[in-house]
Amino acid sequence: MTLPAQTIQAIAVSPGIAIGRVARVRGSNHLQEPNPHKITDDEINGELTRFIAALVETRKQLVELQDQVRDRLNSRDADIFEAHIMLVDDRTLLNEVEKRIKGEHVTAEYALFEATERFTAVFNGMQDEYLKERAADIRDVAARITANLNDDPHHDMELDDRRIIIATTLAPSETAQLDRSKVLGFAVETGSATSHTAILARAMKLPAVVGIPPELPETLTADDKLIIDGYTGKVIINPDGRTEEAYRLKAQAAGELLNELERENSLRPETTDGFMVQLAANLDSPETIGEVKKSGACGIGLFRTEYLFMNTSQLPTEEEQFEVYKDLLVKSGEQPVIIRTLDVGGDKFNTNIFRATEQNPFLGLRGIRLCLHERRDIFSTQLRALLRAGVYGNLRVMLPMVSSIREVNEVKQLVGELQEQLRREKLEFVSHLPLGVMIETPAAAILADRLAPLVDFFSIGTNDLVQYTMAIDRGNERVAYLYRPSHPAILELIRRTVEAARHNNIWVSICGQMASEPSLVPLLVGLGVHELSMAPSSIGMVRRVIRGLAMHEAEEAARQALACSNASDALAISEALLRKSAPEIANI
Amino acid sequence: MTLPAQTIQAIAVSPGIAIGRVARVRGSNHLQEPNPHKITDDEINGELTRFIAALVETRKQLVELQDQVRDRLNSRDADIFEAHIMLVDDRTLLNEVEKRIKGEHVTAEYALFEATERFTAVFNGMQDEYLKERAADIRDVAARITANLNDDPHHDMELDDRRIIIATTLAPSETAQLDRSKVLGFAVETGSATSHTAILARAMKLPAVVGIPPELPETLTADDKLIIDGYTGKVIINPDGRTEEAYRLKAQAAGELLNELERENSLRPETTDGFMVQLAANLDSPETIGEVKKSGACGIGLFRTEYLFMNTSQLPTEEEQFEVYKDLLVKSGEQPVIIRTLDVGGDKFNTNIFRATEQNPFLGLRGIRLCLHERRDIFSTQLRALLRAGVYGNLRVMLPMVSSIREVNEVKQLVGELQEQLRREKLEFVSHLPLGVMIETPAAAILADRLAPLVDFFSIGTNDLVQYTMAIDRGNERVAYLYRPSHPAILELIRRTVEAARHNNIWVSICGQMASEPSLVPLLVGLGVHELSMAPSSIGMVRRVIRGLAMHEAEEAARQALACSNASDALAISEALLRKSAPEIANI
Repeated sequence: MTLPAQTIQAIAVSPGIAIGRVARVRGSNHLQEPNPHKITDDEINGELTRFIAALVETRKQLVELQDQVRDRLNSRDADIFEAHIMLVDDRTLLNEVEKRIKGEHVTAEYALFEATERFTAVFNGMQDEYLKERAADIRDVAARITANLNDDPHHDMELDDRRIIIATTLAPSETAQLDRSKVLGFAVETGSATSHTAILARAMKLPAVVGIPPELPETLTADDKLIIDGYTGKVIINPDGRTEEAYRLKAQAAGELLNELERENSLRPETTDGFMVQLAANLDSPETIGEVKKSGACGIGLFRTEYLFMNTSQLPTEEEQFEVYKDLLVKSGEQPVIIRTLDVGGDKFNTNIFRATEQNPFLGLRGIRLCLHERRDIFSTQLRALLRAGVYGNLRVMLPMVSSIREVNEVKQLVGELQEQLRREKLEFVSHLPLGVMIETPAAAILADRLAPLVDFFSIGTNDLVQYTMAIDRGNERVAYLYRPSHPAILELIRRTVEAARHNNIWVSICGQMASEPSLVPLLVGLGVHELSMAPSSIGMVRRVIRGLAMHEAEEAARQALACSNASDALAISEALLRKSAPEIANI
Repeated sequence: MTLPAQTIQAIAVSPGIAIGRVARVRGSNHLQEPNPHKITDDEINGELTRFIAALVETRKQLVELQDQVRDRLNSRDADIFEAHIMLVDDRTLLNEVEKRIKGEHVTAEYALFEATERFTAVFNGMQDEYLKERAADIRDVAARITANLNDDPHHDMELDDRRIIIATTLAPSETAQLDRSKVLGFAVETGSATSHTAILARAMKLPAVVGIPPELPETLTADDKLIIDGYTGKVIINPDGRTEEAYRLKAQAAGELLNELERENSLRPETTDGFMVQLAANLDSPETIGEVKKSGACGIGLFRTEYLFMNTSQLPTEEEQFEVYKDLLVKSGEQPVIIRTLDVGGDKFNTNIFRATEQNPFLGLRGIRLCLHERRDIFSTQLRALLRAGVYGNLRVMLPMVSSIREVNEVKQLVGELQEQLRREKLEFVSHLPLGVMIETPAAAILADRLAPLVDFFSIGTNDLVQYTMAIDRGNERVAYLYRPSHPAILELIRRTVEAARHNNIWVSICGQMASEPSLVPLLVGLGVHELSMAPSSIGMVRRVIRGLAMHEAEEAARQALACSNASDALAISEALLRKSAPEIANI
């Protein structure tokens, strides 16, 4: 039995269109309660031995999986399994299971089940999304150990033909293991555009949406046909023939357009009247530098350094960081590379090193605050590595979460001290380190006129700027409807920032998600932003938009949008101009 | 052995100066692990009976305590014990203990200990401060039950002479039970100015500071002498004779000044050149209306309605709310009363009714968002009660957490619909309900020019405005240093708001903590704010400050402060003017 035709609005997290039948997936990390069979004193040692053997086997499997993922994707994605291996290696799990086998006379399976329940209950009870994900990791590993206890080979997700996966949740580890030759795309309930699962989907070029209704994974069957629109977030259940045909055409048109855009990668991103808007690439890890080259980006607008700090057992040394930064600069040649100093806390991954219990992590010790206060040691090591690597290319350094002038002055003083250190140590370093600040707190935007004389550039982080200005956490689905980058208050803060930058002859980039949304690009161009930085995959589309715009029209649109009283009206003005200047993009 | 003389900077949360020796308090909620004595099958029923008897006795004691607190303080403070009684009544606790007594053959004490550990581990692991406090409540109740199991009367905190309490933490329930004839004041590690413990301290007129170093409660002994300065947050350990004498003089001077200020309560709060700044009172519950009258406030600038919703088992009916609002309006006569509609979520208490798991509750479904979306039923009931009560006095209604024009328009439409309902039901109601918005998100401040034409007044909630503008949670001690209301970005947002209000002929009040800080009042007056609303106890001091100011000097100070590049410089300008115009206040 199939469901009646209907359309559901979910959230697009990975572009592309998938059309196909459903594969419902329960995920591998659903543990079943074993029979509470009691064992005798004589059996205790046997159970312990069995458990340890299962641990050893599990570890072996995980290392193999890690290798596979490293081959198929890249080493960053493979790091996900490092966390799983660490769980297996952790004495706490073994101790807890041993205690139960001995104390309660239960089987290894039951002891593991109880221990897992206890651990996951604690993590599940937490509000922090990162810690919540640990519960899924623990369940995932426990399911694998249980399978090994029963000599039951771990079932990876296997599909008999090409299907669209529907699930309540897909762990990043499950996503990384999806067979791209079988999976057309996926639609899940939980997650967001910035979740690891979504990042992996984009890396794997799988169309994906999140935020589907909770009951959907239960009600859909293998006979239901779906369309997933990874551009608009629409999920169409059992479409009629005309709808399906329209989407096939759309998928084809979008596919052809994407090919065209790839061929345009050497064209200048300038308006019809000759105003240039630089297009740069955001980069999470150096592995994807190839994509940057292919996109025709003018350089790296945002290189995040958090991934270097993902290993919780030790911090990256100055040498390790130096090599990474140097490599990136060398590969980029004369192109500018903006490296952002460590931005942990809040939504970013948290390691044990930085983690504190914060009621509102987005309003906590993040970015430059952490670096200047609690972990000046880490910050100094990073700045030394940057100062040394700067010799090898066109390096610019950017500070996250600035909210006061004092923070910038403190950084400048520290840089001076480190340069003096390096001089004494007779190491090569750059004597002038171009320094910029992220404009992502309302305070920084409002004080842009006082920050501008102190720095070489601004980069507006619109994701956070919107969140703080509207007082919302966009990861919170109950208030995500207020996440509107076209809100006139946001446009006004961008306008203020650009104005302050112009008066002080420095340039302004935008590195939030807003920069890659074609419908908002006309406003950003009209507001006078000098550079847009985005995922390499978005550059072609934004280049096309810019090349269709006339600056005087974009400026007029921005003026009108600034005077609007709500985000929808402002967006409509920008969309109207987009439809006029780049209709082929507006139609996607 | 006493510690060497030293001064520690903590955070002042309740004004006044206390000088005296130390009483270290461990709090009553520290459970000790009992002997894991095993019982036989025959003893199971006896243990269960003993446990139930202890529950009954505990409940009796808690009801008595609640009555005492109601007599000594007021019924709102007594509500704290309602939560404790609910814990005793909760079947979960009994079931959990029964399961352990029967299944593990342990004593009632041990079963209770284990159950408590399990519950508190879950709550303690949570990031949310409110939920964390539940762990303390559970431990508190469990300690009481344990004492009753052992026929050991529950030890309330007893002091042999007048002392200053030093503790890691004081639960609100412990604070409420402090004997004011014995306790001079307290200094604790955890908490903030807005915590229940601090609110109770101010209600009880106990000088108090929070944020002392964690080791202090361990290192101080009963022989150490302390000075607690509840004005500045200083804690002085074993002061020399001169310091102690100076503080005695300060305490005396402050005491005399407070008496003087009380006598001035009928003087007009106007500058030396005749500009009037209205002083209104913030009110948490109607019981303290007497204090408002005594302070000479011009009315109620902020009546919070959250306390009406504290009972988690049922919501207040329209009639119940109507009676409360009507009573308040009748008692206030012609004086204006600003009632804020329900503002739950975030730092405010959370009942089961509203609670959702949010990673960043301060950026979540709060205030008007919750009222318009998830709980329009609750909001409609409240608005109906307000519309009906408005007939009995000078009512104004204020909306919390507004971040868009749409929200205001939706409320106005809803008010219209409810008026139509009331008309059909032939009930009396006000046909014009003066409506204002809280300016507490940066978005609202930036769009003040577009909000002003829609409403009758603005009230700037500086506590939240500072938090969102600086992107900090001031309850988070790791970033509390960034909570600076004199930050030029905050002053600029206030300036914008006042300007927009003036152009639209509406008035602006400030109801955050900033309004009651004498050192900031010169800036607020200079920025042209029409009204300051604060705790009744602060009105006398602020009146004195205003009466010492000349408007042209205040305006010049505000101009200079707006141009500063940091909060300290701006504050110094305001303080300098305060020292000139009201030195007796500046010296406190």
